[in-house]
Amino acid sequence: MCGIFGIYRNVDAAANTALGLHALQHRGQEAAGIVSFNGERFFAHRDMGLVGEIFGDEEIIRALPGYAAIGHNRYSTSGETVARNTQPLFAHMDFGGFAVAHNGNLTNSMTLRKELVREGRIFQSTSDTEVIIHLIAKSRESTFKDRLIWALKKVIGAYCLVMLIDDKMIAVRDPYGVRPLSLGKLGEAYIVASESVAFDIIGAEFVRDIEPGEMLFIGNDGLESSFPFEKVNKRLDIFEYIYFSRPDSIVDGRSVYEARINIGRKLAEESHVDADVVVSVPDSGNPSAMGYAREANLPFEMGIIRNHYIGRTFIEPTDKIRHLGVKLKHNASRKCLEGKRVVLVDDSIVRGTTSRKIVEMVRAAGAKEIHFRVSSPPKTWPCFYGIDTPDRSKLIAANHTVEEVEKLIGVDSLKYISLDGLYQAMGEKGRNNDAPQFEDSVFTGDYPIPLVDVNGGNHSRDNISLIRETT
Amino acid sequence: MCGIFGIYRNVDAAANTALGLHALQHRGQEAAGIVSFNGERFFAHRDMGLVGEIFGDEEIIRALPGYAAIGHNRYSTSGETVARNTQPLFAHMDFGGFAVAHNGNLTNSMTLRKELVREGRIFQSTSDTEVIIHLIAKSRESTFKDRLIWALKKVIGAYCLVMLIDDKMIAVRDPYGVRPLSLGKLGEAYIVASESVAFDIIGAEFVRDIEPGEMLFIGNDGLESSFPFEKVNKRLDIFEYIYFSRPDSIVDGRSVYEARINIGRKLAEESHVDADVVVSVPDSGNPSAMGYAREANLPFEMGIIRNHYIGRTFIEPTDKIRHLGVKLKHNASRKCLEGKRVVLVDDSIVRGTTSRKIVEMVRAAGAKEIHFRVSSPPKTWPCFYGIDTPDRSKLIAANHTVEEVEKLIGVDSLKYISLDGLYQAMGEKGRNNDAPQFEDSVFTGDYPIPLVDVNGGNHSRDNISLIRETT
Amino acid sequence: MCGIFGIYRNVDAAANTALGLHALQHRGQEAAGIVSFNGERFFAHRDMGLVGEIFGDEEIIRALPGYAAIGHNRYSTSGETVARNTQPLFAHMDFGGFAVAHNGNLTNSMTLRKELVREGRIFQSTSDTEVIIHLIAKSRESTFKDRLIWALKKVIGAYCLVMLIDDKMIAVRDPYGVRPLSLGKLGEAYIVASESVAFDIIGAEFVRDIEPGEMLFIGNDGLESSFPFEKVNKRLDIFEYIYFSRPDSIVDGRSVYEARINIGRKLAEESHVDADVVVSVPDSGNPSAMGYAREANLPFEMGIIRNHYIGRTFIEPTDKIRHLGVKLKHNASRKCLEGKRVVLVDDSIVRGTTSRKIVEMVRAAGAKEIHFRVSSPPKTWPCFYGIDTPDRSKLIAANHTVEEVEKLIGVDSLKYISLDGLYQAMGEKGRNNDAPQFEDSVFTGDYPIPLVDVNGGNHSRDNISLIRETT
Amino acid sequence: MCGIFGIYRNVDAAANTALGLHALQHRGQEAAGIVSFNGERFFAHRDMGLVGEIFGDEEIIRALPGYAAIGHNRYSTSGETVARNTQPLFAHMDFGGFAVAHNGNLTNSMTLRKELVREGRIFQSTSDTEVIIHLIAKSRESTFKDRLIWALKKVIGAYCLVMLIDDKMIAVRDPYGVRPLSLGKLGEAYIVASESVAFDIIGAEFVRDIEPGEMLFIGNDGLESSFPFEKVNKRLDIFEYIYFSRPDSIVDGRSVYEARINIGRKLAEESHVDADVVVSVPDSGNPSAMGYAREANLPFEMGIIRNHYIGRTFIEPTDKIRHLGVKLKHNASRKCLEGKRVVLVDDSIVRGTTSRKIVEMVRAAGAKEIHFRVSSPPKTWPCFYGIDTPDRSKLIAANHTVEEVEKLIGVDSLKYISLDGLYQAMGEKGRNNDAPQFEDSVFTGDYPIPLVDVNGGNHSRDNISLIRETT
Repeated sequence: MCGIFGIYRNVDAAANTALGLHALQHRGQEAAGIVSFNGERFFAHRDMGLVGEIFGDEEIIRALPGYAAIGHNRYSTSGETVARNTQPLFAHMDFGGFAVAHNGNLTNSMTLRKELVREGRIFQSTSDTEVIIHLIAKSRESTFKDRLIWALKKVIGAYCLVMLIDDKMIAVRDPYGVRPLSLGKLGEAYIVASESVAFDIIGAEFVRDIEPGEMLFIGNDGLESSFPFEKVNKRLDIFEYIYFSRPDSIVDGRSVYEARINIGRKLAEESHVDADVVVSVPDSGNPSAMGYAREANLPFEMGIIRNHYIGRTFIEPTDKIRHLGVKLKHNASRKCLEGKRVVLVDDSIVRGTTSRKIVEMVRAAGAKEIHFRVSSPPKTWPCFYGIDTPDRSKLIAANHTVEEVEKLIGVDSLKYISLDGLYQAMGEKGRNNDAPQFEDSVFTGDYPIPLVDVNGGNHSRDNISLIRETT
Repeated sequence: MCGIFGIYRNVDAAANTALGLHALQHRGQEAAGIVSFNGERFFAHRDMGLVGEIFGDEEIIRALPGYAAIGHNRYSTSGETVARNTQPLFAHMDFGGFAVAHNGNLTNSMTLRKELVREGRIFQSTSDTEVIIHLIAKSRESTFKDRLIWALKKVIGAYCLVMLIDDKMIAVRDPYGVRPLSLGKLGEAYIVASESVAFDIIGAEFVRDIEPGEMLFIGNDGLESSFPFEKVNKRLDIFEYIYFSRPDSIVDGRSVYEARINIGRKLAEESHVDADVVVSVPDSGNPSAMGYAREANLPFEMGIIRNHYIGRTFIEPTDKIRHLGVKLKHNASRKCLEGKRVVLVDDSIVRGTTSRKIVEMVRAAGAKEIHFRVSSPPKTWPCFYGIDTPDRSKLIAANHTVEEVEKLIGVDSLKYISLDGLYQAMGEKGRNNDAPQFEDSVFTGDYPIPLVDVNGGNHSRDNISLIRETT
Repeated sequence: MCGIFGIYRNVDAAANTALGLHALQHRGQEAAGIVSFNGERFFAHRDMGLVGEIFGDEEIIRALPGYAAIGHNRYSTSGETVARNTQPLFAHMDFGGFAVAHNGNLTNSMTLRKELVREGRIFQSTSDTEVIIHLIAKSRESTFKDRLIWALKKVIGAYCLVMLIDDKMIAVRDPYGVRPLSLGKLGEAYIVASESVAFDIIGAEFVRDIEPGEMLFIGNDGLESSFPFEKVNKRLDIFEYIYFSRPDSIVDGRSVYEARINIGRKLAEESHVDADVVVSVPDSGNPSAMGYAREANLPFEMGIIRNHYIGRTFIEPTDKIRHLGVKLKHNASRKCLEGKRVVLVDDSIVRGTTSRKIVEMVRAAGAKEIHFRVSSPPKTWPCFYGIDTPDRSKLIAANHTVEEVEKLIGVDSLKYISLDGLYQAMGEKGRNNDAPQFEDSVFTGDYPIPLVDVNGGNHSRDNISLIRETT
Repeated sequence: MCGIFGIYRNVDAAANTALGLHALQHRGQEAAGIVSFNGERFFAHRDMGLVGEIFGDEEIIRALPGYAAIGHNRYSTSGETVARNTQPLFAHMDFGGFAVAHNGNLTNSMTLRKELVREGRIFQSTSDTEVIIHLIAKSRESTFKDRLIWALKKVIGAYCLVMLIDDKMIAVRDPYGVRPLSLGKLGEAYIVASESVAFDIIGAEFVRDIEPGEMLFIGNDGLESSFPFEKVNKRLDIFEYIYFSRPDSIVDGRSVYEARINIGRKLAEESHVDADVVVSVPDSGNPSAMGYAREANLPFEMGIIRNHYIGRTFIEPTDKIRHLGVKLKHNASRKCLEGKRVVLVDDSIVRGTTSRKIVEMVRAAGAKEIHFRVSSPPKTWPCFYGIDTPDRSKLIAANHTVEEVEKLIGVDSLKYISLDGLYQAMGEKGRNNDAPQFEDSVFTGDYPIPLVDVNGGNHSRDNISLIRETT
């Protein structure tokens, strides 16, 4: 996923960026970084960890002066969680400094990288984003804008970018608009963020979504918008509504919270069962479970309590107790479950391991029946546009029928929302198979953006880094 | 508050203690510690921070060998957050090693401390718990049990203790039972914990509550229970149900979750208002808000979203944005609030500052009316039994009428649950003023346990430490 | 060994103490601490490591305000290198705060500790110094001075103490004067330090040595000296001249540098051999080797170069190269050694292991003959007065004849200075066996101060700590 | 300066590299790094600090597997002490991985860098070494060897390089041989190191010096030597003998220790004065002072004692005591100096500030006369070949006559060794002005290697980095 944020013409640019990144923390918890610009020089601070840990110190913020800043929350899609991959990336170009933060995934980055290395270009990271930097550096176009367009026309994939050069902040959203990107305003400052919650935290107002294929130059003289790419049908990743985005965000005009309530309602409509209580797997399952409960006219109970004090590392101290796993995060509340027929709502099943443990826990707390309801269709394909998913062989729904999964996770019944039902919950009539309204490849295997690396045999990232660093 | 945990005769004593403390993390986030015993020697690891941070490393657990362990989560009641106050405390006595973890607050510790210092005894901490150690050390009784009884008869206050000596683990709950303490079992091991959730996480079974005034010796030959203190009426702190304990705990036979639902229902019954939606201040307000919504037959919406990635330190980077405060933790979801008449449910109002900011945020998100409902009566007195409360001059309800508070926090209406209503929600007929069923001094000023230090002019902790340490 | 320092009535008390401790760093590298007093409160900072690492940060010094400060460099005599043993120790007494730093070793501390524990007193450290605190706390005398005298009359051993109470700094040197202690002056401030180099670094002037058995109270009204103990013959540890003290210190009126030159001269006189060059094992062997060279009329060459970038931890990365050991610290310079008959001068031989490795290295660098000369007599007894020595079974000279040692370390000849020769080098006629002028027990087994713990079977420190802490 | 080390075909390659770097620690204390290769992959660990701190942990060494390793000690010549400049640098090329460690300074790196950036190449560091990487990457020659030669023919400056690729370790010394580089052998492994002391520590044997202009490819099939550059006269930096190299090293066939003794003798011969004692400023001044003393037939005394416990950071805690400076490191020993006519020998005078403080200290210790003798000629020009020197305006000898310097540092007399005297001490007849035997530009302003950046106006490093990073 990753979260990106940028602000231009604000006296507290770095501090506001830190706050915006904090609001976007759910999009990536592995690392975070900010690059600011004060009219003369760029300043960077990037580290592994949560935003609050990295930027909680006033001195750190003071070391990031200037009226412009961009920031990034990193969510690891490839295995390399090393410091040099922490964004924003920065490069010294012939025209000056260039910083970039990227949310998404390029599907031809390995192919391009090979070519660029062959040309004698030295990569400093294993991030696909660096390909864009080298393309801009290499471009012979005369203006920065033309060099950027030239470079972006070479890359294929899902991307939202926010960039900083000497006199401009630039935002770009890929032609399909797979990932969300919004424009906000705080006084005279323009802001760009992955989700609208980043505006709320600093009291900025939401202006509009940045359009798929739009390129926005933000300078002292205001905005300059252009659409340099060939037009294609918009296809926002539908998982942004199901799971990724925060419920209090408005993504491409839709309330995520409301979408989830509606998905829950639709799910209830499609998968009725006699039950006593609806319980969600918190926190992401909450709104769907509430929607389900309302539609089914059943009480919604907080039958599973989440422990939020986990942090990134945790105790699995000895083999003997390592199996506890899920209990570190969740506990079933016997009072709500004992003797009950429980509808258990979760947003997805990936490998099935976690679901099975949660079901066991709910069963141990005395539930008489467990009816598992999933607020997304069966996940049968990997994602290539920015979400870390296991390969098909590990996706339980890609290898088992619903009945088999039912048995594997140990429930009395299992139902997923239908693909059309999901689209209907989004206010559509159903999925338009000729021109699908959303990117839904994990359910359908329909990949709108070509998988160049995969198809060209360049997908393996095994040799992308010839070096292993310890720090 | 603080959380305590002890386990005896278990092969993974320290690891299970770490897990138990993690489940009790809500009772104290400042520091944590474990002391184990392997039949020959005691082992300790104590540090500032969260349990997962302190005990997440397998080597740390391996450095705590043995079949017995006790642990403590520290919540700071006095200002001194220094390493030497991290529990369990340990002392080398004439009879061998002695470790103790304490939840509660002694009301005559300063008075006793003065006497003990006058006798030439050296304190190593500023913790009131250390008084108990010196009293045991000083006692001339012949057995450990008699020395412990002698010592505990001298101390006054609220306490749950778990202790470890060479051949026994000992648990004691004060005669009033102000703080909860439960007994569990895992195989042949006995466990003692502040709340039952600590049993759930390690798959242990709940055996029973430890009774007010009970002293339990746990050894290889099983349990030995006694009641050495004069009998008084039990008075568990009613705030354990309102706020402190986890909703999935069973405290003194009552489900905390259910109690909160009932409190919400009673609150709705007492304070009807025409409204469109019920919203809670998450997370502690959730069950009461759900109860309110059910009784009032209104939809319960997650109109305020909590950001759980806060950690202990956080960004308040510059003065200009320091006022954001509450937004780091909460965001109002415009979709649920805009144009609505909102019932906003929270568990208490202390100074009123946070409430005012939340109200502002909800108002800014478009709420048409805000009706604030509080699931506890007005807090008008400080707590002396283990909860850090400001002094009376800072308690908004101690200095203002309900109408004034209404205006100060900026709501359309404000209602608290009544004291009798609260007792009724707990299944009582109302408060029995002759023999109140709960400790409720913060609402009533009725302090069942004498405030010896306060009344004797020894309450000030200003000179308790003549030294300030940096580390 | 340990180094102690105290300063009273100085505006930069803590900073000057840090500098003084830095000058005394050679007396202890394990840990260091400072306690200051500003007229109202005491302040402490104590940590493991070197003075420059611990006190190099200006903020640390600022957190130690006040006009009085005492400090301590810890050298580990017993195995416990834990934080709670870092001095100065501090206690809150009935009369106020009390801080103490100690150089030396008590020989009846275990015996006293047992009694004090039996009386119900709680020890916070395993340091023998804490016994003194409990004795003062326990004393029923009316003034602090009388309590201190009462306490010190109970302890037996070698000690230099510097203490701080509300209105005085106190320095005491044990009746035998086993360890050195000097008085200095900087403006109106009085200073106490283990060695005079601590005065040099801050530009203070040396006033005089503190006498054996002297107790000095230093206050705003100046000095008050007394001699409360029974008089005995002074016996400074002769090893202070051979090895411990810095060459640029003046200890009890003698220049350490000059003493070492004279010892080297005497050694040459006693142990003539035909040779080409004199080489020392640096750094401590340098002056003796120079003295030897002068007397023998041979060139002194720096044939062994010491690498000073060692730090406390170091690389012994794999078994295969672990045997390199000594080479991390020393390298032989082939140019000075090849084909030469070398006189190799070192200050002592303890186990013989290091000597053997150095000899091997010198041999490998081409030395034709190696004549080992030791500037102290054979070490045949353990030290009980503050120096960490292995027990007799590990002292090579206690278990082997000179001829055997010669073979074991692989030299062509081996000679030690004689005991009388050593005394003569110190300006005496020889050792006065009736009233020896120095403490020399490691050579003679003549222990002037009774070994109470050892003789009473209380010497073992195995059970002094029932707890093992990890931090 | 910097120190470099490489080893090929050794089972403990990284561990031996760490030891070698430790022996070369005097050549750079700012940072250190190792890159190893195990036949499949490269491994890196680089950090700020001393070798013993960075590589003291066995796990770090274990994370650097393989039979080949190169390492680097960084000494900061430019201001940027950031992590990304820590060597060895690594790049992923079209032919595989490439690691390089560099000792020296390129004089046209800024000029080349500008060109390379203009071509769209992205630099990851501000190190001049990275220019070499980009040139190799860019080269269109067909073999690695030819690409390397092509690249090195473009760079101008002083350099010793050790490089690692998949199947070879490569060592190169610039045509002038400004910095030293030696070849050693340990079993079947070949070793390359800046100085021979790095062989001593691991018990390797010295094979020969690597020649100026030599390029050595080291592989499984042994050595392949070539001389691809135009031949010029060899000019090793004479300062390697005066100050940089360790006394126990053999540099280009000469013992550094012996060279310093001879320089001291020559200095004595040239600058006789009636005196009582010769004292050195330790440690680098020691051998010259010893040579001086022998020639002058005066006693050599350790009249200044050096405190080796400094570490990199140190206490200058408050303004009031900040002037102490030099005393943290040195103390004058009154016993050796009082009433004496002292010859004080040091290796050089740069700004004069330190010399003045040392003279004050010696004077304060009672010296009657101070005759300052310098074992190098007056330093009147900056170094551009790898040593950090202030610009001419700060060099005291560039701006003052000897008589003026005499007064400024407060001595009774001041003499430098003559330039010819220095050459004579090195065994030459004198300086051959037509073809000087050594690089001596700091004394003569005769720069044999063109100062391209300086002369082209590209010397300023102000804008080399557009970004400032905090970590």
